[in-house]
Amino acid sequence: MEANKGKGDQGMQNPSGQVDRPVSFHFLESMLPKAVKRRVHALKRLQVQCANIEAKFYEEVHELERKYAALYQPLFDKRRDIVTGTVEPTDEECEWHSDRDEEEELAEEVKEKAAIEDAKKEEATPEEDPKGIPEFWLTIFKSVDMLSDMLQEHDEPILKHLKDIQVKFSEPGEPMSFTLEFHFEPNGYFNNAVLTKVYKMKSEPDPSDPFSFEGPEIIDCEGCQIDWHKGKDVTVKTIKKKQKHKGRGTVRTVTKQVPNDSFFNFFNPVKAPPDGEMDEDSEFTLATDFEIGHFFRERIVPRAVLYFTGEALEDDESVSFSLRRMHFETRPYKMLKPQVGYLQTDFCWLWFFSPSLFLQFEEEELEEGEEEEQDEEGDDDDDEGDFDPKA
Amino acid sequence: MEANKGKGDQGMQNPSGQVDRPVSFHFLESMLPKAVKRRVHALKRLQVQCANIEAKFYEEVHELERKYAALYQPLFDKRRDIVTGTVEPTDEECEWHSDRDEEEELAEEVKEKAAIEDAKKEEATPEEDPKGIPEFWLTIFKSVDMLSDMLQEHDEPILKHLKDIQVKFSEPGEPMSFTLEFHFEPNGYFNNAVLTKVYKMKSEPDPSDPFSFEGPEIIDCEGCQIDWHKGKDVTVKTIKKKQKHKGRGTVRTVTKQVPNDSFFNFFNPVKAPPDGEMDEDSEFTLATDFEIGHFFRERIVPRAVLYFTGEALEDDESVSFSLRRMHFETRPYKMLKPQVGYLQTDFCWLWFFSPSLFLQFEEEELEEGEEEEQDEEGDDDDDEGDFDPKA
Repeated sequence: MEANKGKGDQGMQNPSGQVDRPVSFHFLESMLPKAVKRRVHALKRLQVQCANIEAKFYEEVHELERKYAALYQPLFDKRRDIVTGTVEPTDEECEWHSDRDEEEELAEEVKEKAAIEDAKKEEATPEEDPKGIPEFWLTIFKSVDMLSDMLQEHDEPILKHLKDIQVKFSEPGEPMSFTLEFHFEPNGYFNNAVLTKVYKMKSEPDPSDPFSFEGPEIIDCEGCQIDWHKGKDVTVKTIKKKQKHKGRGTVRTVTKQVPNDSFFNFFNPVKAPPDGEMDEDSEFTLATDFEIGHFFRERIVPRAVLYFTGEALEDDESVSFSLRRMHFETRPYKMLKPQVGYLQTDFCWLWFFSPSLFLQFEEEELEEGEEEEQDEEGDDDDDEGDFDPKA
Repeated sequence: MEANKGKGDQGMQNPSGQVDRPVSFHFLESMLPKAVKRRVHALKRLQVQCANIEAKFYEEVHELERKYAALYQPLFDKRRDIVTGTVEPTDEECEWHSDRDEEEELAEEVKEKAAIEDAKKEEATPEEDPKGIPEFWLTIFKSVDMLSDMLQEHDEPILKHLKDIQVKFSEPGEPMSFTLEFHFEPNGYFNNAVLTKVYKMKSEPDPSDPFSFEGPEIIDCEGCQIDWHKGKDVTVKTIKKKQKHKGRGTVRTVTKQVPNDSFFNFFNPVKAPPDGEMDEDSEFTLATDFEIGHFFRERIVPRAVLYFTGEALEDDESVSFSLRRMHFETRPYKMLKPQVGYLQTDFCWLWFFSPSLFLQFEEEELEEGEEEEQDEEGDDDDDEGDFDPKA
């Protein structure tokens, strides 16, 4: 599990802290006359039936989403074609009246004049009219905190080749899931045209706790193999390490490949074990991953241009965000351990954090080429014949 | 508007504070080369089309809810019959295995023995087996903060007669709305068998701000006339007031009926003016009312027994509540001014408040029968010929 030590290090206490179910309602129930308690149990049985009906409701909502996904798709295809420069929109398609007030309009006129000047320059220098909308998706990644937290400098040139992000829903009859597809143009980094991340969902009450059912929840996710060109894999780095033997005092240098922070680790998520047992850090990492997958599906993909211009960010930051976020959900889901989220209110700035999702090695690391002295024994993974003081 | 001076007095600043839309995205857009800006505008036009499709989606979700409401109804009817004692559930219908661990089971056995003793007593004293589940809805009102905040002592004997709360959805083709129906058994307080509160909704993007569309929103509500028996109206009280004339020093006593705190003011909500102009307090009061209506519809009515036993409250208080609340919504809506809500997290206890919704007279009041000296001029509403020092 060492490779998955994503750590929420902003002072979060017990991020996966399950709240013990208090017994107060048992107490209340035990206070009731027996005949009344009996009737309350009858109501509880009815409530379980309600939960089962609710599960069917959510399945139908999922179907409805599939139906509407097909209606949105032509618009999203058009978006992709404009972004990549495959299609140039007509003048009519570009008509847009901003909602600025008159004062701003006035300032605009000044700017317009400057723009005319610029336009003249543009005509002179054709580089000023780039293809499509350059760095469309990269700009979004940089603007949205939840994504920029994952983004590393070495990811940026790769994400310039991102053409489109699509959401695909599972077919009727299949287990409920959605897939994020990241479409890339040919690039110098990997061979894949599409990178995928599948989020598996469940829409049925847990028989042992049917009342906690609140709609479909993400239960697992699966990434994909990235076929990196040689030496281009940004998810690993080579480190050199000096190890001083405590007993003998000798120093040796070892080279090894270790995981490296990168957005592309998104395609190699922590695996939820089938038995449900998981350490705290992994659980937290997975919960964050689910939240990000959900955010792509619900916000980024359906309204990408608004994240590009920043309009959606301003909405997200507005006073009404917390409730809007509470209410925009059409497809409820629960997190494995739902501790992350972006909420903001007038009263309390409550930016839950999206910690760096990935590796934080506790041992000292040296980038290739760097050097430093170490007093400690090398890590235990090196199974060499060295003297072990604990032995 | 005097009758609706609901005041959020917990130190909330500017509850209706609209966030000024910053111009940064205009700035970002103005930085783009003209040809790119043009393409961004094309994407925005596509985004408006998406919002219009989304509105249709939500209409279909509403239809789906109507369909499922009919599936839940037989279960809710059964619930009502058991609560009121009209129907006694069979032994099979009452079978319930709690999820207690073995230790608790053991303790339970001891209790069971005591219960058998009790049962014997019950048989001897038939009062111990009351009809149905007494005070079912009143218990819920008392347990849920959002409701208990509205509840006054004088409301309690009335709410003991509450038999059922139902949610009715608007028919297809009608403007979107839902109605809360409070069904009462015959009682000594009013003649109505049903008190209603209609919440009107809107599911279409605002043409002047299409990107803010997040699904149906409650836009207005309407109460009902309560046909109180003489002297039983708890929403008014008679006060006696002593007024000392500042100039002449004479004292007189006036009697008047003023609004009184009561849950039943819920059926006489603030009216949203058609022009949308509203003072801050009224806006806040209305937003709280919308939140309560939504809570009845989404939580209380669908899972009443869990609020009766307290299980739902424990869920609501658990760590996972904030996200669960964020995600349980199948029918997104926006508040007029969405500043109220119940959110809770591991990091920050953030109980937005449900303030007393109703009147908080700033002038001094005396319940009928009480007396007190007042040095100040009587309130300005009394349009009598007294000397006005400000004149």
